[in-house]
Amino acid sequence: MNTHYADRLTTAILARQTPAVVGLDPVLEKLPAVLQPKDASLKSAVSAIESFGRAVIDVVAPLVPAVKINAGFFEALMGEGLSAYYKLVAYAHSRGLLVIGDIKRGDIGSTAQMYARGHLASPIFTDVDPQQIPDAVTVAGYLGENAVRAFIESARECGRGLYVLVRPSEPKADEVHEFGADERFYQHMAKLVRSWGEDEDLIGERGMSCVGAVVAPKNTQSTTALRASLPHTPFLVPGYGAQGGTAEGCRPCFRTDGTGAVVNASRSVIYAFSKPEYTAQHGDDWQACIDAACRVFAADVAPLIRS
Amino acid sequence: MNTHYADRLTTAILARQTPAVVGLDPVLEKLPAVLQPKDASLKSAVSAIESFGRAVIDVVAPLVPAVKINAGFFEALMGEGLSAYYKLVAYAHSRGLLVIGDIKRGDIGSTAQMYARGHLASPIFTDVDPQQIPDAVTVAGYLGENAVRAFIESARECGRGLYVLVRPSEPKADEVHEFGADERFYQHMAKLVRSWGEDEDLIGERGMSCVGAVVAPKNTQSTTALRASLPHTPFLVPGYGAQGGTAEGCRPCFRTDGTGAVVNASRSVIYAFSKPEYTAQHGDDWQACIDAACRVFAADVAPLIRS
Repeated sequence: MNTHYADRLTTAILARQTPAVVGLDPVLEKLPAVLQPKDASLKSAVSAIESFGRAVIDVVAPLVPAVKINAGFFEALMGEGLSAYYKLVAYAHSRGLLVIGDIKRGDIGSTAQMYARGHLASPIFTDVDPQQIPDAVTVAGYLGENAVRAFIESARECGRGLYVLVRPSEPKADEVHEFGADERFYQHMAKLVRSWGEDEDLIGERGMSCVGAVVAPKNTQSTTALRASLPHTPFLVPGYGAQGGTAEGCRPCFRTDGTGAVVNASRSVIYAFSKPEYTAQHGDDWQACIDAACRVFAADVAPLIRS
Repeated sequence: MNTHYADRLTTAILARQTPAVVGLDPVLEKLPAVLQPKDASLKSAVSAIESFGRAVIDVVAPLVPAVKINAGFFEALMGEGLSAYYKLVAYAHSRGLLVIGDIKRGDIGSTAQMYARGHLASPIFTDVDPQQIPDAVTVAGYLGENAVRAFIESARECGRGLYVLVRPSEPKADEVHEFGADERFYQHMAKLVRSWGEDEDLIGERGMSCVGAVVAPKNTQSTTALRASLPHTPFLVPGYGAQGGTAEGCRPCFRTDGTGAVVNASRSVIYAFSKPEYTAQHGDDWQACIDAACRVFAADVAPLIRS
């Protein structure tokens, strides 16, 4: 466990020969008909998304190095939903996957310490399975260094990692992230993220920090510049698939040796059973549809890790 | 319930004659000795912070219009902790308090919809008590309008509200919020928040929007300017008490007629039983210490609502 996060991730990428990460964003209304809850209770809803999550994990575990589990889709089902998130983190670990917890928390220092306790630190309780804690989480650094410091300390101590929001895939985010004249806001955030992650003892054997960045490839020029300005920062790349991005568009997020990034796809994989291109061949075998879509995704981005 | 949030809050402030909001930030190690868990299990820890929360609510309910419950301190105890957060929201409602859920969520549009479902929309499940949903939440708008849009729609439909981060109390936040030359980043965020909340049907009878802002009174000049630039925006004011702020320092957050803001204090009230100034008089009656500290706080900020 105490091997550096970036090194563990690189090993997993090389083992699967793809930087593909499948995102788990379960929405009740979108689940396969057979998994739809029998009644309108929260309990049944939580059970349904948990079953769906386990099934998706079963399908993708042999194909990709990691899954990203999005806490928001579980919190739609309140505390019980968040408990299901933790159970799925443990289940993905049991299937040999690395897990990124997509939580995007960001608060003042005293509160951030509490979020880090529950989401990235090793649990101190006798009745908590340590496998429920993901290998890395996404965080928001907009309240400055103290918003991420506790996460960095947990990452350092436990061989875990974090990805700080730098360039989100949300199109409307530009009204915030393009703020500024000569220097833009996202470039300022990139400089901060670099400084937060450059302590020598945060850098793994392959030269990558445990402090990463979420970087959507908005356009080749700005992404190439970000990659150059963050030489030691692993990127988590959203926006592929349902959000419109292509594998080639993600290339500037990678270092020239093919390391340094993972690419996430969520809806385009986990809801493949709603797409004619997959149901035409697999009918109502929804897991076969997800399997096929995951293989297409994994193969599509595979060339990116070759230098 | 469908009365406008800002109007309900103003009514509650006038009834208690103070704009004081008590923040519930329970940390296991800081609980009174009698509430310390009997073993090292998560279950006992959750039970302890929930008991503490109920006791604090019992004490402050007759004294203040609202409590702010900080989700981070509950998520330190994972899914079970978040379930306790929801139970305390319902309990505070049962004691006649308004509740602000301090969640600071902020994500891309599709994920923000899910967070809004679980944290601000009226629940659709047969086994969920609607009283578990707070009257307002704090959110982060750093991913742009789509990060807050779903919360605004829930607020509009349900008579609830939101406070978007504009000027956090965290001192290190300045490295982000003072970014920019002529216009600073926090001023840019203020303009966005104003635009998000100015639709006529978001404004209540007393001229306040359901889209508020978190504004720490960093200095008189900049706070006065923020107040002037956000005439319809209710402010949630952190930084008082343990974080060093004074009542007089909070004055620029209020409109000249004494409306438009609430002031939060957390640690200085709920951990009063650790302070000699209160234990000298109340000994180990920790609830009496909290009661005394809450009365001091409520009285200290009371003059701010007088124009």
